[in-house]
Amino acid sequence: MSTAINRHWLLLDRPKGGNFSEVLSLREAPVPDAGEGQIRVRSVYLSLDPTNAVWMQYDSYLPAVPLNTTMRGLVLGVVDQSNHAKFKVGDIVTGMGSWADYTVADGSSFGRVPNIPGLPLLAYMGPLGMTGATAYFGLLDIGKPKEGETVVVSAAAGAVGSLVGQIAKLKGCRAVGIAGSADKCNWLTGELGYDAAVNYKEKGWQKALKNAVPDGIDIYFENVGGEITEVALSLLNVKGRIPFCGAISQYNSTEPAPGPRNLSVLVSRRARMEGFLVLDYAPRMAEMYAEMGPWLAAGQIKWKVELDQGLENTLTSFNKLFTGGNTGKLAVQISDEPAR
Amino acid sequence: MSTAINRHWLLLDRPKGGNFSEVLSLREAPVPDAGEGQIRVRSVYLSLDPTNAVWMQYDSYLPAVPLNTTMRGLVLGVVDQSNHAKFKVGDIVTGMGSWADYTVADGSSFGRVPNIPGLPLLAYMGPLGMTGATAYFGLLDIGKPKEGETVVVSAAAGAVGSLVGQIAKLKGCRAVGIAGSADKCNWLTGELGYDAAVNYKEKGWQKALKNAVPDGIDIYFENVGGEITEVALSLLNVKGRIPFCGAISQYNSTEPAPGPRNLSVLVSRRARMEGFLVLDYAPRMAEMYAEMGPWLAAGQIKWKVELDQGLENTLTSFNKLFTGGNTGKLAVQISDEPAR
Repeated sequence: MSTAINRHWLLLDRPKGGNFSEVLSLREAPVPDAGEGQIRVRSVYLSLDPTNAVWMQYDSYLPAVPLNTTMRGLVLGVVDQSNHAKFKVGDIVTGMGSWADYTVADGSSFGRVPNIPGLPLLAYMGPLGMTGATAYFGLLDIGKPKEGETVVVSAAAGAVGSLVGQIAKLKGCRAVGIAGSADKCNWLTGELGYDAAVNYKEKGWQKALKNAVPDGIDIYFENVGGEITEVALSLLNVKGRIPFCGAISQYNSTEPAPGPRNLSVLVSRRARMEGFLVLDYAPRMAEMYAEMGPWLAAGQIKWKVELDQGLENTLTSFNKLFTGGNTGKLAVQISDEPAR
Repeated sequence: MSTAINRHWLLLDRPKGGNFSEVLSLREAPVPDAGEGQIRVRSVYLSLDPTNAVWMQYDSYLPAVPLNTTMRGLVLGVVDQSNHAKFKVGDIVTGMGSWADYTVADGSSFGRVPNIPGLPLLAYMGPLGMTGATAYFGLLDIGKPKEGETVVVSAAAGAVGSLVGQIAKLKGCRAVGIAGSADKCNWLTGELGYDAAVNYKEKGWQKALKNAVPDGIDIYFENVGGEITEVALSLLNVKGRIPFCGAISQYNSTEPAPGPRNLSVLVSRRARMEGFLVLDYAPRMAEMYAEMGPWLAAGQIKWKVELDQGLENTLTSFNKLFTGGNTGKLAVQISDEPAR
């Protein structure tokens, strides 16, 4: 066994109402060795995503993280010990790991990262990672946009939303974003090429959204829940589609919030609301690399990863997801990038 | 102009909370003549459907019925005056007519009824009418059942629901109905061949439903809204489908009711909720006649139309839809059937 230290965040209790700092604790232990058929991955980047809050709380599409074990997270890192035929030391991989310096895992939960020229490794935490896949497959596979349609994105300045609008534009759609500050809205229209953006914290935003979609909404990319969903539903066109990608406004509610009061709009508009999980698209990542890679390399999609430093700052960083404190994808750097 | 009398129900105000008798009034006027390009239809049967309450209240997939005009309804009748090349006097037709002895309409809103041997005319008010089309296309086109799957139907003893379960059985599925009395449940399992039925007015029905779907729910045919929807969502399988056909429990609410609190189940189960309107399937009725006709003629689908007598009793009959007073499809006979 290594004598080096593996820092790791233990989940001690189920969080309630977003009290993450009361239930997660940074501990130290010796770095574990990879067992038979396993690999050990040194974390370089840890992805922080709203869905992590779900994993802490209850069984969902994944089992809840067991109490008194290390918190689960998407990791990009380097194989530094391998007892698995598919991986060798030095491979750069991404997959389901831990909020920790090191993850020991069987090979099935990690995959090697491709090397697309001109793209930094950090891209695989963002637009070519699970975030990118959520935007790409959610919009294209579930939403099925047609040229000239109007796509409205909630949480549009978030990691996923900021990509959805740009992909929509590349597919010939009108893209309208909903976000929570004037700065974010300016970023959407000024930098990302959104056709319009609406600040839902401003009085009268409902009217502003209506004005921003003169032809109604064909696709509403659902990220948030709550009143925003109701207003978007009211503007939905016949045969509208709602790719449903989680409801961040409700991840930390202690009481489940009621659904939209006007859900029956789905009937009168013959519309479809469809949930999806990016993990289901793991076997199709190559499709995304093939189309998104060139867009990114050509600068046709702008992206940023807000990168905080140090495993010890993970919690502080994570809390920003729920207070609107971050713009775009959030990640933490845990160790140095390897040479490529 | 004819000197005969056309009795008709005028809509005087928008109903609130189900006070239909306060807003509808039976009046008399001379029978109108068909104008250029129009037909006049003598009503034989008038279909009474929950969605009629929507038409009285607000613009939806159809404009609200204008105040101080005759209430709109699906009619089966006989052409008794025709200025339209497609129709001749004596044709038996069905289409969008009025709560009245006679409807004058242009040809586009009516279609001739086929003559499938062995089936009474009343079948075209029920299993081969809009009710049948709602069940048939909602289950097959939206739900896409596969053999061996479990289909749960709310309002299962209703006009649509009683057909959905039988079609599901004919497609090799397990059919479970939810209804509001022991009698209705007995009818579902005893007469219609449902595999199980749950009385939602009985304490512990949630548990009973869970027990009735040991393999979970693949298709939930949504007719009602409210708590039943939440319980069904909680039992939904991965890749579940929810054909959404209106929410009868909410048609007469003065305040819109909240949607299901667990709507995000759609995400974790990668499930799809999709609204549909039977009117969209008007061009595809022949598909239904082709498959349902033989089932009906062979007695493989049981159906009944609860037939009340007399246009003057329409309101009394209509109110039964919202008090659970009817079983199966509800219609009113307004005049005698023609010879065929």
